[in-house]
Amino acid sequence: MNYGIIVKVLGIILLIESLLMSPSVFISQHHGGEAVMPLAFTILLMLVLGIFMMNVRNRHEHIRAKDGIVIVALGWVLISLFGALPFYLTDSVPTYADAIFETVSGFTTTGSSVIANVEALDKGILFWRSMTHWIGGMGILVFTLALLPALGVGSLQIFKAESPGPVAGKIVPRMKDTARVLYVTYIAITLLQVILLSFGGVNLLESFVITFGTVGTGGFGPRNDSMASYSSYVQIVTGIFMVLSGVNFSLYFLIFRKKYKEFLEDRELRLYLFFVFISVLMIAVNLLITFKGDFLITLRDSFFQVSSIMTTTGYSTVDFELWPSFSKLILFFLMFVGGSAGSTAGGMKVVRILVILKLIKREISKIFHPRALIPIKVGGKIVSNEVIARINSFLTLHMVIFVIGVIVVSLEGVDMITSMSSVAATINNIGPGFGGVGPTLTFADYSIFTKLFLSLIMLLGRLEHFTIIALLVPKSWTKES
Amino acid sequence: MNYGIIVKVLGIILLIESLLMSPSVFISQHHGGEAVMPLAFTILLMLVLGIFMMNVRNRHEHIRAKDGIVIVALGWVLISLFGALPFYLTDSVPTYADAIFETVSGFTTTGSSVIANVEALDKGILFWRSMTHWIGGMGILVFTLALLPALGVGSLQIFKAESPGPVAGKIVPRMKDTARVLYVTYIAITLLQVILLSFGGVNLLESFVITFGTVGTGGFGPRNDSMASYSSYVQIVTGIFMVLSGVNFSLYFLIFRKKYKEFLEDRELRLYLFFVFISVLMIAVNLLITFKGDFLITLRDSFFQVSSIMTTTGYSTVDFELWPSFSKLILFFLMFVGGSAGSTAGGMKVVRILVILKLIKREISKIFHPRALIPIKVGGKIVSNEVIARINSFLTLHMVIFVIGVIVVSLEGVDMITSMSSVAATINNIGPGFGGVGPTLTFADYSIFTKLFLSLIMLLGRLEHFTIIALLVPKSWTKES
Repeated sequence: MNYGIIVKVLGIILLIESLLMSPSVFISQHHGGEAVMPLAFTILLMLVLGIFMMNVRNRHEHIRAKDGIVIVALGWVLISLFGALPFYLTDSVPTYADAIFETVSGFTTTGSSVIANVEALDKGILFWRSMTHWIGGMGILVFTLALLPALGVGSLQIFKAESPGPVAGKIVPRMKDTARVLYVTYIAITLLQVILLSFGGVNLLESFVITFGTVGTGGFGPRNDSMASYSSYVQIVTGIFMVLSGVNFSLYFLIFRKKYKEFLEDRELRLYLFFVFISVLMIAVNLLITFKGDFLITLRDSFFQVSSIMTTTGYSTVDFELWPSFSKLILFFLMFVGGSAGSTAGGMKVVRILVILKLIKREISKIFHPRALIPIKVGGKIVSNEVIARINSFLTLHMVIFVIGVIVVSLEGVDMITSMSSVAATINNIGPGFGGVGPTLTFADYSIFTKLFLSLIMLLGRLEHFTIIALLVPKSWTKES
Repeated sequence: MNYGIIVKVLGIILLIESLLMSPSVFISQHHGGEAVMPLAFTILLMLVLGIFMMNVRNRHEHIRAKDGIVIVALGWVLISLFGALPFYLTDSVPTYADAIFETVSGFTTTGSSVIANVEALDKGILFWRSMTHWIGGMGILVFTLALLPALGVGSLQIFKAESPGPVAGKIVPRMKDTARVLYVTYIAITLLQVILLSFGGVNLLESFVITFGTVGTGGFGPRNDSMASYSSYVQIVTGIFMVLSGVNFSLYFLIFRKKYKEFLEDRELRLYLFFVFISVLMIAVNLLITFKGDFLITLRDSFFQVSSIMTTTGYSTVDFELWPSFSKLILFFLMFVGGSAGSTAGGMKVVRILVILKLIKREISKIFHPRALIPIKVGGKIVSNEVIARINSFLTLHMVIFVIGVIVVSLEGVDMITSMSSVAATINNIGPGFGGVGPTLTFADYSIFTKLFLSLIMLLGRLEHFTIIALLVPKSWTKES
């Protein structure tokens, strides 16, 4: 392990975080200024520590694969610990554990909250809270890679560890350029949504806050009722941008290069849109039969909620806790599906579902043709056995951690559905769940232990388990340097 | 496809079923005789049809692999359709669909029921109801194989298709002898429990009924309160025999051969007993803290319920619906674990959990040692990639069918937990679930559609999906004969 370079990169990450926190100071200043000192203090602390860490001596400049894993895992813990300070210092939350929960929830783009009255927050804090979604969505390390000179094979490892999905590919030859292309696309989509929301009469601050929560598929909003009190226009724009943010961002590069056919033929994109379509349809029919409401309004509500849950954003425009079981269960299972690989969304990712469906199909064929050798292909490309093994293990590990999580949370004395959906909402980085953590409620009543435990669950979900677990199993990394 | 031999074997299966239904006639005769005519009529019908089918001309006597699959799938449907007649003809259930649900639940050793007042049933019907557990537990086709002369490679295929678990092995060189050894062991365990229950003051009929439900890990009992009104002795004996019936029956052959060390070192057995032990402990502590009851009684109740759910039997001695979420969730997830491969239990089977845990461990090692080739071993033997692929696909298919099942059942308008546990209880062949299908309730209120749908789910679970699905996908078997 090359500790020198690890400390150095972690220092750079802190510097970047201090940079990204700066706009919040001005926003706080502009709206009363209660949080100026706490924010400025945190920024200064990160600056000093970051500069100190950057100057730690190290043997060589190259990051190896192992170093990359450690950097990602520790990096995420570090930005959360510092990002939590402003919440704690402004008394926006009762304890530092609450602040950590809120910040991890932000960075992991979960959107589960312990704050019921977000409208009472200082605007600088509100902005920073949503900014964490934006940073965490595309990844702070991908951002770092875009800025840093090439650092060796570890760069690819870092990129793989932070990008969701089974196969994080370079879209242009150099890692650094790939990271830049992704961030440029991300910024373009962000600005587009901010402009469209402003057209809808939303003020600039709220436009940014909503957009950060949308494109990061996070779910922190500026109002206590999430998105319920916004106009249909704002809800529909946000709904569409949530769907866009659940798409693999590399695909937008295809559009940019005018490869429209390749874009439209992407198997994951098709299955993703099919899931959205069929879920919206089934829920809309179920709601129309149950509540006999207006067709278009029902369709809008169904679309918004499906788009929000499937992309693991977590905004809501209605209290879906009041929906019939059929609709609620579709949402519950969509939580686990999640968005596409290479998007900002959480969950298990559509491409993994695609691969396991193909694996199941293969086993069925094998019943009658036991000796047939059938390769698994996605979009014409053969998926290697290595990747298949990784996908299978990811899915089973996801379920194992879910099961353990649910049992641990049930010690809070909540009912089964609350317990299950607390973990489903955090491991898949959604935000709200059902029952006691439904869309109109928060995670505030849980004990400090459960809040920290769920913070870990959110990190596991965001970094897709293996990176964090590798760090927690010291045997695996102290054996060889 | 060799239709001649398929019809022939199906005819033999009907003859065997008519033979196994015969004792019920005498029991009914002895206790009032209301069901004598319906039972005798069904037996006669099966006899006539069976003899007719046995004499269908066929080209050759050998069963090929494909024929074996079709025989198993159709065989199970056939015995259920005929086995249901006595329930319908005696008006023990309101409709034939209810009778099918009850019979499929019996043969698949599920134990979910539509009959609330079992004490009012004719004793012959009660006996037949539980007899279906006993037949289905070890398998009617394994029984058939034990009687028939060798029928070619299809015999092994039939055995594999009907025996639960990823690798059904012969324990002695000849298939026929393996089937016999298994049934002799099964009969021995059955008689032992009947004797022990009789010692506890249970009358002979109830002893048999309880035992059939125990060793078949079914769950149909002779009383309306399941096992709650029996003495501690009877409950403990039954609890122990449930655990014994969740063990791979081939292992008992090791004891018979005095290979005690091999028996005790079996990895699946160890993990199975560990799951039982740790679950009993956690639930007992949780119950003691919650209800502050007597230590030994709490331990007895915890042991009985864990043993019942983990082995997928479904008997109950207390209403575990009233337990705290922590205990209920442990039971809920144990439903999916199930018993051992090669036992009469349902669920996903402990050995599959063992393999996926090893696969997860391998992926974690690979983070830091990406090029390492680590074979997966269970008890010193390498598990082939074929078997691993099958296990992974089984588990994901199990979840996919669970998800579809839950959404379909939710159309009944029941709550989420009732919907989830209705499917969990049937796909894993347990019996009772939580909420509206808790241990004190039945499945009687569901529509005919849902009852038939859940019957299919029970069959899928018992035959581990692939066999039934192969039959439902005609493309896969009509392509080549």
